[in-house]
Amino acid sequence: MVPDILRHPKVRLTAAATRNKERLEKIAYEYNVETYYTIEDLCKSTNVDAVYIATPTELHTEHVRIAAEAKKHIIVEKPLSVSLTDADNMIENAERNGVQLIVGHSHSFEPPIQKMREIITSGELGRVVMIHNWYFNDWLYRPRTPEELKTELGGGVTYRQGSHQFDIIRFLGGGMIRSIRAVTGIWDDSRPTEGNHSIFLEFENGTAATAVYNGYDHFHTTELTFDIGEGGPLTKSNIYAQSRRLITETNSPADEVSLKIASGYGGSRSKNYQVAEKNHPFFGLTIVSCEKGDIRQHPDGLLVYGENEKYVVPISKEETGRFNVIDELCTAVIEGQRPVHDGYWAKANLEVCIKAIQSSKERKELYLDFQVPVKDKVKNIIG
Amino acid sequence: MVPDILRHPKVRLTAAATRNKERLEKIAYEYNVETYYTIEDLCKSTNVDAVYIATPTELHTEHVRIAAEAKKHIIVEKPLSVSLTDADNMIENAERNGVQLIVGHSHSFEPPIQKMREIITSGELGRVVMIHNWYFNDWLYRPRTPEELKTELGGGVTYRQGSHQFDIIRFLGGGMIRSIRAVTGIWDDSRPTEGNHSIFLEFENGTAATAVYNGYDHFHTTELTFDIGEGGPLTKSNIYAQSRRLITETNSPADEVSLKIASGYGGSRSKNYQVAEKNHPFFGLTIVSCEKGDIRQHPDGLLVYGENEKYVVPISKEETGRFNVIDELCTAVIEGQRPVHDGYWAKANLEVCIKAIQSSKERKELYLDFQVPVKDKVKNIIG
Repeated sequence: MVPDILRHPKVRLTAAATRNKERLEKIAYEYNVETYYTIEDLCKSTNVDAVYIATPTELHTEHVRIAAEAKKHIIVEKPLSVSLTDADNMIENAERNGVQLIVGHSHSFEPPIQKMREIITSGELGRVVMIHNWYFNDWLYRPRTPEELKTELGGGVTYRQGSHQFDIIRFLGGGMIRSIRAVTGIWDDSRPTEGNHSIFLEFENGTAATAVYNGYDHFHTTELTFDIGEGGPLTKSNIYAQSRRLITETNSPADEVSLKIASGYGGSRSKNYQVAEKNHPFFGLTIVSCEKGDIRQHPDGLLVYGENEKYVVPISKEETGRFNVIDELCTAVIEGQRPVHDGYWAKANLEVCIKAIQSSKERKELYLDFQVPVKDKVKNIIG
Repeated sequence: MVPDILRHPKVRLTAAATRNKERLEKIAYEYNVETYYTIEDLCKSTNVDAVYIATPTELHTEHVRIAAEAKKHIIVEKPLSVSLTDADNMIENAERNGVQLIVGHSHSFEPPIQKMREIITSGELGRVVMIHNWYFNDWLYRPRTPEELKTELGGGVTYRQGSHQFDIIRFLGGGMIRSIRAVTGIWDDSRPTEGNHSIFLEFENGTAATAVYNGYDHFHTTELTFDIGEGGPLTKSNIYAQSRRLITETNSPADEVSLKIASGYGGSRSKNYQVAEKNHPFFGLTIVSCEKGDIRQHPDGLLVYGENEKYVVPISKEETGRFNVIDELCTAVIEGQRPVHDGYWAKANLEVCIKAIQSSKERKELYLDFQVPVKDKVKNIIG
């Protein structure tokens, strides 16, 4: 998030908190900001108006409460929580304290998905008939913290990646899912959390959707998406199943956490995201079918297969999904516009995750209770 | 079918019947065979042991009865019928008369699908977790006879193309589907039959599957499958939505039938399939995920994404799906081996088609009653 915080004209990076002393010193040195060991102390700073919470999922409820009670606006990482009660708790805390709560970054903030929604709502392709998102990659074998591999803590692909798929699908389809039927799978005893799923969704208005995910590092859908994944263009290592093999050679969960830390901020394996993101990310293959045409992503923007022609809708590389998260917060705080990705939106995504796993266990279709519609941006009307 | 009948060592083309006089004369001249106007007369010939019935779906029951009562073995085109009662009727007629009944050609006869099943049953990749078949093409706008566009006569993509998808998926997953949830769509008033569907299937053993189809001639999945479709490699016309536009300019159903006839045997738009089929057909994108690897088609055979390497399993171009249909009949007749693609198999595929449309109407998951397992070929054991 940091590069986008730094370049957004309406926000400033003023403080940071982490219990990792080394990182804290690096941040203080690099950005010249206040540093704290705890969120309580950070929230006491009068130089802080809004907090971005990127702590593990099970700490979100407590951290959102602390920030909200300190009257700080909040961006909290997805998944918001693992239980609907926790989600309600955070929503109530934010409302009671009069602060905005935005859940992100998630992929519906990305410019290509935003642009797809814009084309859909313009009506030029008629109504949405089907939405599909299929993603095969190495998710399960990238270095993980222990909680990312425990379903009960919000780990596994259904909670952590399904939440992106449902976010994309709900955003494109208008939000109101009626029912779900899913099969989720746990196939590697050494990483006993969901590694794949096949999910069918129907919206209240009849639009159908599927979300298919396979994180076992065999086939990768980047083969179908111009060699571009969620982190931008692939580096062509040409080594098959590199992630799975690296993890197999890692001796302990502690070693694995070290690997993960090394690829994070200030780490030895850290990527330079500004270089990596030459293209907008592709969260797998997303295909939207409308009555009069289909849409999918293209390296330069979107490919639209219309009634009479197939054409590229270019999308600027300047705008990013993470920039849009900050923008949505600013618009909410400054203009008082209710954000799309508020607590209710995140709770609705979470409900789909929870019911996907439940549908698989009970082997039956389930109905949804907490879905909310997309709040499409209203263009300013002058005059 | 004719080229494969001619080159199969165990069969001879001895007679043909059609009410189209011009075609009949051409066949008589070209192949030096007996010709008849009706199936009744053809079935009186002592030179006929087996009949291939390629008449419209609604005539299958009557034609199968005639052939069976004349003690001729039968290959009948898919879909077998539109009702389960008709399917039962044909199965009973064949059994009572002691003749073999095979339903085909369908895509599970194709060498790549057969090879996938062989890899699955070998167990080298562990059990099957998910099977997906996704096909986007121009089906609805290819020249059609009126019954192909009437759902109640077995028209539309769910009956005519879903039957291939379910055949592939059931063949790979072992046959026994437990439940289905589907949304089927009719979006073009001028061709009011199913043009797309999104279908979720779960097998009794827990394997999940999806079958997605869109025949509205916008995006084509050949973009994802090496530019190869069910008819082999694409001719690169570079004209977008050519099928839809051609049909829009066609004035009447009669003109459209003429177009279809022109592309059939002896017609002016007839393709030379032997030239076209340089590669095995790709019935859309089929991806099989097993515990220890994924499989998909490749122009030279299959791509296997295994535990440690990704490799091509080559498949000879000599063998074809249509050759395999004839072969299955010969094995059934000569060796008395029960064919995989018998009436019960076809009835099980038909049940999935019927319940897909019903699931969409009732907006709920439905359970299946007439599924049968795959009869895997038993290799001859010597010794």
